[in-house]
Amino acid sequence: MSSVQDTKASVDISLKYKEAVAPYAPDMERVEKDILKHFQSDVALIPQVSEYLAGSGGKRIRPILLTVASRLCGYTGASRHITLSVVAEFIHAATLLHDDVVDDADQRRGMESANIKFGNCASVLVGDFLFAKSFVLMSQDGDIRVINAMSEATRRLAEGEVLQLVNTLNLTITEDIYTDTIYRKTGALIEACCRLGAILGGASKEKEEALAQYGRNIGIAFQLVDDALDFVGDARGWGKPLGADLEEGRVTLPLIRALAMADESEAGDIKSAMESDTGREAKLGAVIMTLKKYDTISYAMEQARWRVEEAKSAISACFEPSSHLDTMRAIADYVVDRKI
Amino acid sequence: MSSVQDTKASVDISLKYKEAVAPYAPDMERVEKDILKHFQSDVALIPQVSEYLAGSGGKRIRPILLTVASRLCGYTGASRHITLSVVAEFIHAATLLHDDVVDDADQRRGMESANIKFGNCASVLVGDFLFAKSFVLMSQDGDIRVINAMSEATRRLAEGEVLQLVNTLNLTITEDIYTDTIYRKTGALIEACCRLGAILGGASKEKEEALAQYGRNIGIAFQLVDDALDFVGDARGWGKPLGADLEEGRVTLPLIRALAMADESEAGDIKSAMESDTGREAKLGAVIMTLKKYDTISYAMEQARWRVEEAKSAISACFEPSSHLDTMRAIADYVVDRKI
Repeated sequence: MSSVQDTKASVDISLKYKEAVAPYAPDMERVEKDILKHFQSDVALIPQVSEYLAGSGGKRIRPILLTVASRLCGYTGASRHITLSVVAEFIHAATLLHDDVVDDADQRRGMESANIKFGNCASVLVGDFLFAKSFVLMSQDGDIRVINAMSEATRRLAEGEVLQLVNTLNLTITEDIYTDTIYRKTGALIEACCRLGAILGGASKEKEEALAQYGRNIGIAFQLVDDALDFVGDARGWGKPLGADLEEGRVTLPLIRALAMADESEAGDIKSAMESDTGREAKLGAVIMTLKKYDTISYAMEQARWRVEEAKSAISACFEPSSHLDTMRAIADYVVDRKI
Repeated sequence: MSSVQDTKASVDISLKYKEAVAPYAPDMERVEKDILKHFQSDVALIPQVSEYLAGSGGKRIRPILLTVASRLCGYTGASRHITLSVVAEFIHAATLLHDDVVDDADQRRGMESANIKFGNCASVLVGDFLFAKSFVLMSQDGDIRVINAMSEATRRLAEGEVLQLVNTLNLTITEDIYTDTIYRKTGALIEACCRLGAILGGASKEKEEALAQYGRNIGIAFQLVDDALDFVGDARGWGKPLGADLEEGRVTLPLIRALAMADESEAGDIKSAMESDTGREAKLGAVIMTLKKYDTISYAMEQARWRVEEAKSAISACFEPSSHLDTMRAIADYVVDRKI
């Protein structure tokens, strides 16, 4: 797992990321302010739950991508990228709220999750409010292409969540099904954010598709890394207990690959651990030896790196050199080596 | 409660309704077909859950209102009213799925509810799919005014659901808060459907507002009747157990009015019953005597009838006589005296 633990490279990439996104900090501050503004409702529980979720942090990867992509495509406006960044974060926040209900999670980014603090009912309904509000904001923005891209992404996102649900504990899923699921669950919204940047900038169809391809690939890479780190732990402060996905019965790439490589006895051990009522640690114990033997976390990380290279190539082939293009590349690298 | 039990008048009104909507039956058949078509997804659980919910029936009051309102406003097109009717039913279905999770319901229209049959997780996520799909369909329809009206309605709907949640067992809520809650929860989407009819027909602002006012009022009337019948029972085949709202701690108009009229000892009895862990029937027993003494179910039904008259006046003042206008009036009457 040297690739995960290569702290020196991670530090370099994180510093590069910080430098690359620094020029967009004023925009990101406006996004934060507008997120709080649009949470408002005369129904007091709605801002309470929303602000709690916002207060637990988040990488704001969608707003930064949307903003940088729009500048890369020549958008010079002052406000649409802010509003649409809020939209992207609201859709993302709504899925986090619903996700935590579905997973019966008790932690999110190291804090008590909203469903524990406010109850499942509040999480479901405030999630619905955030979905609805995001479409109110888009209808006020008034661009049908934006609404089409975002509603399609939201539909895929819901399909991805359902796919994940029906494949809980399904040890026979293939790498292709896994990749399709994480594309829908995580890649589609990030893809849409990059596409929105192109729409704001009035980019050509070719440039829009290149940005969409970039977004799709880094979205998948992002989830690949997230899933791989479930087996490596929280040393980098991700606020998620080690083996949480395993406990929820999520079958992710390191496990799929291990099952494909394992002999009958190893596969049997994994199967009985996953299907038994033992806790997180017992499941991890049974799985981790086989993952290590076949080095499948590195396998997943390599796939993530390959996706990042694909992402960078897609835009490098289509855009002239610029600081915005450099930033898009730095963001792509950061997706794999983030949070040192 | 003579007003609820006046079977002769109900029969007349239901017959009149049936006759009035008969000319729109071919449109309604197309709505049914398109509902099934747009449920489709390569994720098999999605059509399963959706078709189960669709199979449990429903009055399709939103599609009929949208369609008749559009014809009243001179819309002669063949398909937009069908698509937007599907949209309205998808948004409605999504809220039913989420509602049943929040209420921990076990029945819907006399059948096992979807959350019991498929689990809470499936209900939450398929509801999200239906929300998203409704906005995909609207973005394909391509009219920003439609999207604005529907997203605002969906936002209000979510707020109404949250209001209902936070006021569970709140015996101090006023008639105004109750009315505001049922407007958001039920009135806003019906209002939007009528407004969409006006938009499709290219009606004047004045006519659009008259139709919106009609929809708002019959939406509120619809929920007033629904809530009143919680105390009267299922004799008319509504598929909901007697006192289900009471058991969920929903404080509705007959109860609010009874608490306002009751002496201290009666109010105390209601309070202890509502706050105790006794079941549905014990709660009903404690409440029903006071409701009867102060005739508060009739009070709620009178409010519903007043709303229906307001609704009819709003459109009668604005539109020339026509069969479409007659149908809109017959639908309004049916909202109070439906399902004999």
